[in-house]
Amino acid sequence: MQRHGQVIRVLPEKLEEYKAYHARVWPEVLEKIQDCRIRNYSIYHKDGFLFAYFEYVGDDFEADMAKMAADPKTQEWWAIMRPLQQPLESRAEGEWWAEMQEVFHTD
Amino acid sequence: MQRHGQVIRVLPEKLEEYKAYHARVWPEVLEKIQDCRIRNYSIYHKDGFLFAYFEYVGDDFEADMAKMAADPKTQEWWAIMRPLQQPLESRAEGEWWAEMQEVFHTD
Repeated sequence: MQRHGQVIRVLPEKLEEYKAYHARVWPEVLEKIQDCRIRNYSIYHKDGFLFAYFEYVGDDFEADMAKMAADPKTQEWWAIMRPLQQPLESRAEGEWWAEMQEVFHTD
Repeated sequence: MQRHGQVIRVLPEKLEEYKAYHARVWPEVLEKIQDCRIRNYSIYHKDGFLFAYFEYVGDDFEADMAKMAADPKTQEWWAIMRPLQQPLESRAEGEWWAEMQEVFHTD
């Protein structure tokens, strides 16, 4: 199992809208997350920062993320989320949410 | 089970020191974390921000956190970590790491 931490900003004036959408995530989006072997996925907010934690239980993360990105309903969801978010300038090429570095873990 | 997301800053010039300590966390500190019913505890870094995710499996979080805070070895560890960190001004009274708001979760 592979753990991931990711970060992005949410536009202050869009926070409530972002939270409202995430209180009722579309079932097709949740199904695709499961289908792409993402588990125990949480998003937290503080001071305009969104922090995501999830666990990847598959064996080809890039392939599963490509599968998710190819899903029309997920694309539709992302098209609504993207204008609410502000990615970090320091993110790696090709990233939207920026991958964070794990500095500690204990089970 | 109760999930927590927390955030704090690390001083840029202290990041490497912070990472070095967390690559070799004292066994007594890890044992106390377990003893206080914290599980699946990860800390991530990006751009001077530290994000923590952990799961609390007990039934009295405040009491267990008080137990942790009363542990001499944990106090010793925190006394070394504190000068490396810069807490958010927006944190709640009594917090060091600021609790984040969960805006999404899926198992």
